[in-house]
Amino acid sequence: MRKRMNLIGKSFIGFSRGSETEKTFTAFNPETGEAVEPSFYSATIEELNSAVELAQRSRIAYGRVSGKEKAKFLRQIADNIEALGDDLIQRATLETGLPNARFEGERGRTCWQFRMFADLVEKGHWVDARIDHAEPERKPLPKPDTRSMFRPVGPIAVFCASNFPLAYSVGGGDTASAFAAGCPVIVNAHNAHPGTAELVGHAISQAVRSCGLPEGVFSLLFSSNYEIGQNLVKHPAIKAVGFTGSQKGGRALMDIAAARDEPIPVYAEMSSINPTFILPSALEKDYVSVAKGLYSSVTLGAGQFCTKPGIVVLPDSEHLQKFAEFMKELMQESDASQLLTSGIRDAYEMGVENRGENTASASSEKETEGFGVNPSLFQTNASYFLQDETMSEEIFGPTTVLIKSDTAAELLEIATNMEGQLTASVFCSEEDLYEYGFLIDVLETKVGRLIYNGFSTGVEVNDSIVHGGVYPATSDSRTSSVGTRAIERFSRLVCYQNFPQESLPDELKDGNPLGLRRVVDGEAAEN
Amino acid sequence: MRKRMNLIGKSFIGFSRGSETEKTFTAFNPETGEAVEPSFYSATIEELNSAVELAQRSRIAYGRVSGKEKAKFLRQIADNIEALGDDLIQRATLETGLPNARFEGERGRTCWQFRMFADLVEKGHWVDARIDHAEPERKPLPKPDTRSMFRPVGPIAVFCASNFPLAYSVGGGDTASAFAAGCPVIVNAHNAHPGTAELVGHAISQAVRSCGLPEGVFSLLFSSNYEIGQNLVKHPAIKAVGFTGSQKGGRALMDIAAARDEPIPVYAEMSSINPTFILPSALEKDYVSVAKGLYSSVTLGAGQFCTKPGIVVLPDSEHLQKFAEFMKELMQESDASQLLTSGIRDAYEMGVENRGENTASASSEKETEGFGVNPSLFQTNASYFLQDETMSEEIFGPTTVLIKSDTAAELLEIATNMEGQLTASVFCSEEDLYEYGFLIDVLETKVGRLIYNGFSTGVEVNDSIVHGGVYPATSDSRTSSVGTRAIERFSRLVCYQNFPQESLPDELKDGNPLGLRRVVDGEAAEN
Repeated sequence: MRKRMNLIGKSFIGFSRGSETEKTFTAFNPETGEAVEPSFYSATIEELNSAVELAQRSRIAYGRVSGKEKAKFLRQIADNIEALGDDLIQRATLETGLPNARFEGERGRTCWQFRMFADLVEKGHWVDARIDHAEPERKPLPKPDTRSMFRPVGPIAVFCASNFPLAYSVGGGDTASAFAAGCPVIVNAHNAHPGTAELVGHAISQAVRSCGLPEGVFSLLFSSNYEIGQNLVKHPAIKAVGFTGSQKGGRALMDIAAARDEPIPVYAEMSSINPTFILPSALEKDYVSVAKGLYSSVTLGAGQFCTKPGIVVLPDSEHLQKFAEFMKELMQESDASQLLTSGIRDAYEMGVENRGENTASASSEKETEGFGVNPSLFQTNASYFLQDETMSEEIFGPTTVLIKSDTAAELLEIATNMEGQLTASVFCSEEDLYEYGFLIDVLETKVGRLIYNGFSTGVEVNDSIVHGGVYPATSDSRTSSVGTRAIERFSRLVCYQNFPQESLPDELKDGNPLGLRRVVDGEAAEN
Repeated sequence: MRKRMNLIGKSFIGFSRGSETEKTFTAFNPETGEAVEPSFYSATIEELNSAVELAQRSRIAYGRVSGKEKAKFLRQIADNIEALGDDLIQRATLETGLPNARFEGERGRTCWQFRMFADLVEKGHWVDARIDHAEPERKPLPKPDTRSMFRPVGPIAVFCASNFPLAYSVGGGDTASAFAAGCPVIVNAHNAHPGTAELVGHAISQAVRSCGLPEGVFSLLFSSNYEIGQNLVKHPAIKAVGFTGSQKGGRALMDIAAARDEPIPVYAEMSSINPTFILPSALEKDYVSVAKGLYSSVTLGAGQFCTKPGIVVLPDSEHLQKFAEFMKELMQESDASQLLTSGIRDAYEMGVENRGENTASASSEKETEGFGVNPSLFQTNASYFLQDETMSEEIFGPTTVLIKSDTAAELLEIATNMEGQLTASVFCSEEDLYEYGFLIDVLETKVGRLIYNGFSTGVEVNDSIVHGGVYPATSDSRTSSVGTRAIERFSRLVCYQNFPQESLPDELKDGNPLGLRRVVDGEAAEN
């Protein structure tokens, strides 16, 4: 209780707090639709500029902090978040309508991410150090000594996700990977969960202080509208952007970033309908389990995951009808779900209402309160689906579309016409996977993650995960916003030519004092 | 002679040749300013579309070609370029006014690049394969098997550089790295050296055929204006762009790419003034050698290198006056230089004429013919330099500015105010390098390559080189357009989850059949 009482609704401008400005807003309780105390004060442009100037001033100093020291900082953040205890869980639950258990899991993931990046930068291999030694006798010209590695790109703007108040918000994957890379971070809080944001902001701010890092390494801005976020992306000292949210929001930031005098990269993770192909061999084996799995995946977190299976393509087969009937039953018997905000609820209801003419629908019809809605299932044919572009639009919430295809050609056409996606799943026997290689080949050109016999929700946080994919799933298919690869987004390459040993970063010194995996004269070397 | 006679001036649309369109153009001989036979036919939009459709159709097939087979293809291109023999050298010399010896060197570099990428993809480590094994017993949820690697991004548009008719043109670093990544390439030829482009186009096209690769892997479009290039970048099937040229040209392509329905990355290597800081300890040691080195670097290739030292900052010292006088002598005694095109000549003459009011200048005054100009040296003070933004603009050609600074604060201000650059050089004793650490710290946030006691011209082609830097030096400071790191620009990450062994790419299979360096369950592993 103590910490919850401490919410004061003011931005973090380095170690100072923002002022009591005129523009205020509150969170809402999705269960009731009612406002939740306290009021939060929108940051002013002056406060934004102060935060960015602090970040800019801390840039070089923080960029020189060793991997070991950064690891200490990242672990301290994780410890501080855990130390918030039930206050954090209760506030997150209050602001989102999601259950306690969900936030216990999400807090675990959030702290795990900080500790994973701590391990990564403590080991230090990620900088991809490369050395080519000089050959003074080379003809016609002497060969110089060249050494290169990843260095931090500069101050980062992070935009919080509505649907991950912990793992992709103030202390989320973007912040953790930017800190790990050596970049100061300025967070634009999501106004659906500002109290959660303030609590995590405290945890990070305390870690900056207790680790003796420069003030500008972290700031957190509250805002009731888009003005602060847009001006953050426009500020010349900001060098990259991390964003998780809608396609419209992500594209708006991409356009602002591209129009700057100095364009900067925006790493936006946006919309995806995560096409799921269920071939006859999978239904034949066990259509009941597949239907139960699909139902769970579609309704998990009230369907508010970027990896929710939004379309399910099924070649016609003996078991298709039974599968579809069973899915319908599951959805009709489903409880109502609380969505995160009134905006998400309205968009869901409009999306469901407008879903194409040639679709059959089945919904549960429970009473709803606050931001509650009923899950909905749609069914159509491939030929109708291919004619109606709106069928490919993401509806955020507990709904999906079953699409019956009559030919392999239709299946391929759906895959070929599809926009970029975060994931695609294929359910079938191993023989079919081989036979449908043409489908995998096409899907591979669109998605960041291909899944065999599994649903797309649930994203591992590790070295090999790719939470990416072709636009509009993300703005940058070269990268991943989840897992250790995320650090590369906030890094740039620097080469040192003919530098004396004492002036080189430790990562590039002879004798390999940090024990890194390096490439030396073309060969892997640990010395 | 035989091959030169074969120039027909038509685009390569896969294995077909373009038509004799109405828009034609020729190369010019910089020595005389006169047109050179034959006429070249601008590609039509229909031809462009055919080329891109062929590329799109070959995308999946070429993307599945093994590293070994790609290596064979890349080596065949190098062999074919060498087999063009003197015809290639003579045509390049005729179209550029640069000496034979330069092209013998540049041809060596060009073929070296293809062979370097052949070795890279034959070894295969570049795909950065990562594996995390499943843990079916993990609580609360089973851990899936996830494996990821770099895969080709799709068809690439390559824009040729005026100043590297071989190494950064049709068969240049962008083309070589895109092919190596597994991407089809469509080249937009530079209209200053179309005959050189056609010869190299033949060499590549023959290699595509003789290696049995799909037709769409390579096309080459001639054009007399920007229409073809702009439409190429707009085409939805193009997935990334490589460009070497002016800031204006690069930014125009960046803006087009960012405005597409699906924005795509543009890797533009643009302008740079490569600031060179010469501290008193360097002049004290041997000012004559430093001046001779600077003179050579500024006039190399008629000053038409992106790494030419465009500004030289010198703290006042005992030897500065003697150094400046000696530089002046060297420049005044210099021969006239042939520039590549009438446009580059006109821009040079206008740039030199308009160089700020408060600068002293010294030029050679030799007679010039064709696109010839005289080298020019400018001198000014830091305070004037800092007041006049135009002093930081690149003048392409044999000229540089010496800037005297009176205080360390001025030195730092110049570095701090500076835009992004490809390189920066610092000449001094080792003690001074340590003492001027503040300068290195600032320069490191701006440039791709920091050089100690060396000039910036001459870019190694290896694993550790970074030919990159902050905008406007390049459009993307995360990458390098030279060396093996260039391949990453044309790659994207794909993760395979729970895939059976037979359906995985060889790079990700258990047992490591390709013998790659991989990261397996968080550890480096070669098995």
